[in-house]
Amino acid sequence: MFKPTLGASTLLDRQSHKRSDAAYLEALLKAPEARFLVLADQKPVIQSNPERTKGNIRWFTLDEMQRVGLPVSDSLFLGVDRTTGGGRFAVAVTEHRARNAPGGLELMRPIVDLRSLAMNGVLPPEELSLLSLAKALAAWHENTRCCGHCGGTTLIKDGGWRRKCWACGQDHFPRTDPVVIMLIVDPPNDRCLLGHEARFAENMWSTLAGFIEPGEDIETAVRRETMEETSIKVGEVRFISTQPWPFPHSLMIGCIGIAESSEIRIDPNEIVDARWFPREEVRQMLEGTHPKGLWVPGQHAIARTLITAFVEGEY
Amino acid sequence: MFKPTLGASTLLDRQSHKRSDAAYLEALLKAPEARFLVLADQKPVIQSNPERTKGNIRWFTLDEMQRVGLPVSDSLFLGVDRTTGGGRFAVAVTEHRARNAPGGLELMRPIVDLRSLAMNGVLPPEELSLLSLAKALAAWHENTRCCGHCGGTTLIKDGGWRRKCWACGQDHFPRTDPVVIMLIVDPPNDRCLLGHEARFAENMWSTLAGFIEPGEDIETAVRRETMEETSIKVGEVRFISTQPWPFPHSLMIGCIGIAESSEIRIDPNEIVDARWFPREEVRQMLEGTHPKGLWVPGQHAIARTLITAFVEGEY
Repeated sequence: MFKPTLGASTLLDRQSHKRSDAAYLEALLKAPEARFLVLADQKPVIQSNPERTKGNIRWFTLDEMQRVGLPVSDSLFLGVDRTTGGGRFAVAVTEHRARNAPGGLELMRPIVDLRSLAMNGVLPPEELSLLSLAKALAAWHENTRCCGHCGGTTLIKDGGWRRKCWACGQDHFPRTDPVVIMLIVDPPNDRCLLGHEARFAENMWSTLAGFIEPGEDIETAVRRETMEETSIKVGEVRFISTQPWPFPHSLMIGCIGIAESSEIRIDPNEIVDARWFPREEVRQMLEGTHPKGLWVPGQHAIARTLITAFVEGEY
Repeated sequence: MFKPTLGASTLLDRQSHKRSDAAYLEALLKAPEARFLVLADQKPVIQSNPERTKGNIRWFTLDEMQRVGLPVSDSLFLGVDRTTGGGRFAVAVTEHRARNAPGGLELMRPIVDLRSLAMNGVLPPEELSLLSLAKALAAWHENTRCCGHCGGTTLIKDGGWRRKCWACGQDHFPRTDPVVIMLIVDPPNDRCLLGHEARFAENMWSTLAGFIEPGEDIETAVRRETMEETSIKVGEVRFISTQPWPFPHSLMIGCIGIAESSEIRIDPNEIVDARWFPREEVRQMLEGTHPKGLWVPGQHAIARTLITAFVEGEY
């Protein structure tokens, strides 16, 4: 099975059962092996070669963090490095603060959008996955500064894996939004259904997708979303693979669905176009040899996993 | 495949693409076919036979809602009845308000905890599923009254499928928490791993489970949770089935994982006990014939789906 680059990171042991142990986290934070990554408005600070074709996470020591004047008191605990045993943390600040830190101009660049990093393959997959965890967590914090229950201020607990309302005491936990992403196939005609959304790059076609709603299972969500967007009726649904997707904090659940109808009627509020593609045409899109320049998402995307499974006859 | 009673409801067409059409919802709400269910502190009002062994959702007409003085202005739009074409809505109020409504003592009882309804099989599965949707949505509203971003008051939009911050304008969407629930099996020894948590009823044993965290895929979450709770190493993970679970708004993702180690060391903060059960013993637990009275969860639970798959050799 194809391995998406934004899969779960294997670099760290999350030590999730130790997160509520404040003394343990404090010791990790102050140990010389501690390392910090910086998210500036949720965009990571990386280091790269001059051509910007290869890069790595810019890991800061505690000394460096102090030198640039960035706070580590509300660090998000990512886990423990499996090699060094050192704690790894994320520090989320505004881009303004990062760029204006003393020495920030040298130390704090480039600050790069995570989606671009995923697209361009600049970082090793394991580091990209780790940034994906940090970004998903930071995005949740950004949106949970106040208590949804009472509006009170919430405080960071458990190394960033919980927030507690100062006013009413309610606990809040990180949010992950499950999304179905599905390739609808029509086996008798050896073709699959791809759509083009307004936000897509020109000539790019991809699978349909949508959030799973309360009270839905995966199959129901696949059928509902496909019906809404294209009016195609889906029968059997097969589960293929999942992938964390930190925009802002989704879990993509990849499925293949078997079409039970043929006639497409799109909902123009959802997508610009949708049509059936024969398998050979999809192979050309996958291989970059399509005569009209049509293409499908790149190696970072679970959509490509599904499309590849279809082209190779694995569904 | 076993069909859990808290699966996705098929009674209604959710009409999710029409939710932002305020005039459409208003017309549905005022039509004579409109029906309302009441959640009192998230517990549904039902009607039942005197023995309380069989029941149904208590559907209120608009007239009845007005007579008991309950507001329909912030109704949650559940969908359209596939038979009558009428709109179906949920109205979430406090239990105090429901019980003190004029005529409430006759009309508003029994008010029953949804978990008990699921356990006892009082309601038809389709109605139970529909209540599960209503409860998951209501629980999210209860906890999203204020904006997590700025603390401002949020207002109901789109028939209850969105809340918008009055102060900063941020949109908030219903939350669904993905949970892995997994039966760990040891094929060479024809046995499976079950645990007993402190909150379980006496002698009940079930599968392990835990929330999927940001930056995790399903396999990683299954392996991490199993390792944390029991120290058992899991290799291959197979996806089996999903089920919405409205406590408060989870999506249970059922998997079978293949054990790669044998020695159990439990984390006492997570579970009370865990051990390997031979297949024949699990069959007795499933059939209610275990000599020591051990048992497994009932027909409402996806855990039973997984356990049944193991006992019947389907994994």
